[in-house]
Amino acid sequence: MTHGCFYMKLSPLEQSILDSFPVGAKQLLVAVSGGVDSVTLLYALTRLSATLNVSLHAAHLDHQIRQESAADAVFVRDLCAQWNVPCDVESCAVADLAQQRKLSVEMAGRQARREFLQRLAVEVDADAISLAHHQDDQVETFMLRLLRGSGQSGLASMRVCQAIWWRPLLGCSREQILAYAQQHGLPWVEDQSNKNPKYLRNQLRHELIPQMLKINPSFKTQIAGLTQRIQVEEDYWQEQVVRQVNELALPCADGLRLGRDALLALHPALRVRTLREALQQVRGDLQRIEAIHLQAIEALLSGIKSQAQLNLPGCWVARRYDALWFRATAPELPSPFNLPLPLSGELELPDGRVLRTSTQDELEGESAWVTEYSLAALSQPLRVRSWLPGDRFVPSGMFGHKKLKSFFSDNQIEIEARLTMPLLVCGDTILWVVGARRSGCAVAGQGQGKVLRVELI
Amino acid sequence: MTHGCFYMKLSPLEQSILDSFPVGAKQLLVAVSGGVDSVTLLYALTRLSATLNVSLHAAHLDHQIRQESAADAVFVRDLCAQWNVPCDVESCAVADLAQQRKLSVEMAGRQARREFLQRLAVEVDADAISLAHHQDDQVETFMLRLLRGSGQSGLASMRVCQAIWWRPLLGCSREQILAYAQQHGLPWVEDQSNKNPKYLRNQLRHELIPQMLKINPSFKTQIAGLTQRIQVEEDYWQEQVVRQVNELALPCADGLRLGRDALLALHPALRVRTLREALQQVRGDLQRIEAIHLQAIEALLSGIKSQAQLNLPGCWVARRYDALWFRATAPELPSPFNLPLPLSGELELPDGRVLRTSTQDELEGESAWVTEYSLAALSQPLRVRSWLPGDRFVPSGMFGHKKLKSFFSDNQIEIEARLTMPLLVCGDTILWVVGARRSGCAVAGQGQGKVLRVELI
Repeated sequence: MTHGCFYMKLSPLEQSILDSFPVGAKQLLVAVSGGVDSVTLLYALTRLSATLNVSLHAAHLDHQIRQESAADAVFVRDLCAQWNVPCDVESCAVADLAQQRKLSVEMAGRQARREFLQRLAVEVDADAISLAHHQDDQVETFMLRLLRGSGQSGLASMRVCQAIWWRPLLGCSREQILAYAQQHGLPWVEDQSNKNPKYLRNQLRHELIPQMLKINPSFKTQIAGLTQRIQVEEDYWQEQVVRQVNELALPCADGLRLGRDALLALHPALRVRTLREALQQVRGDLQRIEAIHLQAIEALLSGIKSQAQLNLPGCWVARRYDALWFRATAPELPSPFNLPLPLSGELELPDGRVLRTSTQDELEGESAWVTEYSLAALSQPLRVRSWLPGDRFVPSGMFGHKKLKSFFSDNQIEIEARLTMPLLVCGDTILWVVGARRSGCAVAGQGQGKVLRVELI
Repeated sequence: MTHGCFYMKLSPLEQSILDSFPVGAKQLLVAVSGGVDSVTLLYALTRLSATLNVSLHAAHLDHQIRQESAADAVFVRDLCAQWNVPCDVESCAVADLAQQRKLSVEMAGRQARREFLQRLAVEVDADAISLAHHQDDQVETFMLRLLRGSGQSGLASMRVCQAIWWRPLLGCSREQILAYAQQHGLPWVEDQSNKNPKYLRNQLRHELIPQMLKINPSFKTQIAGLTQRIQVEEDYWQEQVVRQVNELALPCADGLRLGRDALLALHPALRVRTLREALQQVRGDLQRIEAIHLQAIEALLSGIKSQAQLNLPGCWVARRYDALWFRATAPELPSPFNLPLPLSGELELPDGRVLRTSTQDELEGESAWVTEYSLAALSQPLRVRSWLPGDRFVPSGMFGHKKLKSFFSDNQIEIEARLTMPLLVCGDTILWVVGARRSGCAVAGQGQGKVLRVELI
């Protein structure tokens, strides 16, 4: 975004803010810890707010983990009062939260901050939340993710603009921010936890990254450039995979189904990214999804088993013949049923369909939805029940028994459909795999006595 | 590749060799430094050669940089004799080569080895050259490239199979190789230069990577996995960019021309990769090409100048109106010319075309390739010359002068074509921008005396 006329000379830091300003934002929420980065960001924003025609609102969360944290909160409140920026301060017992959510204190603090800021953004009707992350933070994030075994997407690290979050200083170095703060005589507090070597980020900051800078003095700007280029490629992949998921999607009542042949025809790189996108769509995110999970899905896809399923962290993936089926959770298996069928009347099946029976003198003819039986041949009361392991029947027109399991398999009837499929039985004899195949038993003949007519509605 | 029957139990290391064996290879050249990695590879290959139905040939290059290097050569020669593997040993004064080629000793050694192996591979008719790089080398290569500011493609690091090179141990750890060597009682020599901290690779091996392993014990396997996934994506990109370059290519006599609008329509990630592929095609490789060069080409492409050019390392890129033109070197600019034109006869132009003149009594009519002039109006001898800065003429049908430069620009005549375009002049007056536009001077009228007819053939 360019702005027509200025009455002051802008520093590169201020220029970064202007260049990345979210077009049309009228209200900004600024996260202020009280450290030099966020104080500098807040100050630069106050200088630019008239030019940008934007109102500021500051936010500070007291983590209650350091002794001086209450003092930091007072510092931020006073500074905002002095700079005429409305400010909200809240407290959160992050250590307790960490225990409660089974997270590291770092991660719990991060979650608490994000939740606080997102809630406050709604309250003050903010168009964006400004964070003071800078280039050094970006390099640390990249190295942290590399160390933790992140994939390519994770290495893209932080973005200047991502949903409501805005990081205008992401291209500025720590030195640049410090120089700006000193030049403008800004006050700030030092966060002592930045020196605590128990945090991995601090080990990186104070040990590993300085060693890398000794080897290559341009290391930080090069990694920052790399993250930008990875981000551009991630955007490209995102376009591709969204298109693929849309193109490959099959009709599906719950979850997402993708065509197997179409998946297998994709380049492996595009395929694995498309599978990730499917997971993202059914899970909401990709947390705890690792390369090994995607390899398992690949194996499911290309394996010889035509029906199989995987329970993965936060989702369930199944192969069902020519489809790969993604759901947040495994589908609930329908309960078995076993119901008496009157010789004349209606029976509602568990899936909502209805079987209607009537006793007649004449044949009317069978179809996929209608069968007729010789009433005289039915020695026992009729029942309608669900499939049981070991079920066999004599398909009409065939000699001998066939396992129902084989019949289901031959007809590509999926596991879930097998369990809801009603079977019309007389004692141990399956008369009709309802709607699918009649058995050769109790066939009614013209003029051979009463006929039981069973109709699926 | 799978093999039907074995008479021995294979170790995972040997299995890696079998699994990645280049299908159909009959003759292998094995690079043997004498260190544990290459001795292990050679030994495992001798064990598998019958199963693989492949002949082995060893190769050792004595770098002459270490005191014990001659002894290493003897060691390798003796070992190969003992194992019945034919072996070629050569010497190369790598230190001198480094000075001569202005390279580091490491890089000169690498080049010397590759040249030696490639030459020997031709001599022994080898189908592949086996190198003993393993997972630890791969992680070091990744980290080295990251430290040196490599882009995404470079981070793909080494491949198991790449052209004639085969690295069957790339998935095996250093510990695995050492254990195999010890189990089989193999002898080897220690390369003292592996301990020299002046080599960056050794700093990584002995300092940085151990620190990273302390933070994350799975660091090495995770980085190895990351390089594999990056390789799969690089293969995808390669497919995409080759297709793009083919689709976007314009007819071009020398070098490569891509359509500008089509390039601008691509996603930025695909565009920058397509530009890199164009560079690769005209240069043969991408050495010394950095992100900044691609940014310069992007600027050339999207800038307001319709003609401009860049001299980049090992190549030349120009915008020429709606095309981007890639060449290994800048095109040679044609020499200026200034030739007398007889009133009747032929003149061969520098570009090979011919101007034919004749004096006639009658008009015959003009065309794009023929003009006619009133001989009486031609006060001075005619000449044909190339464009000079400041040239102006009166285009026929217009009032007043026009700068020839503007005329060229209006007609999108490219810089190189401007310099070969012949101008028919009489003194200071341009009569004809040959083949492009006649001037309004010396127009011949019917029945107004002798006519000079000039024809471009």
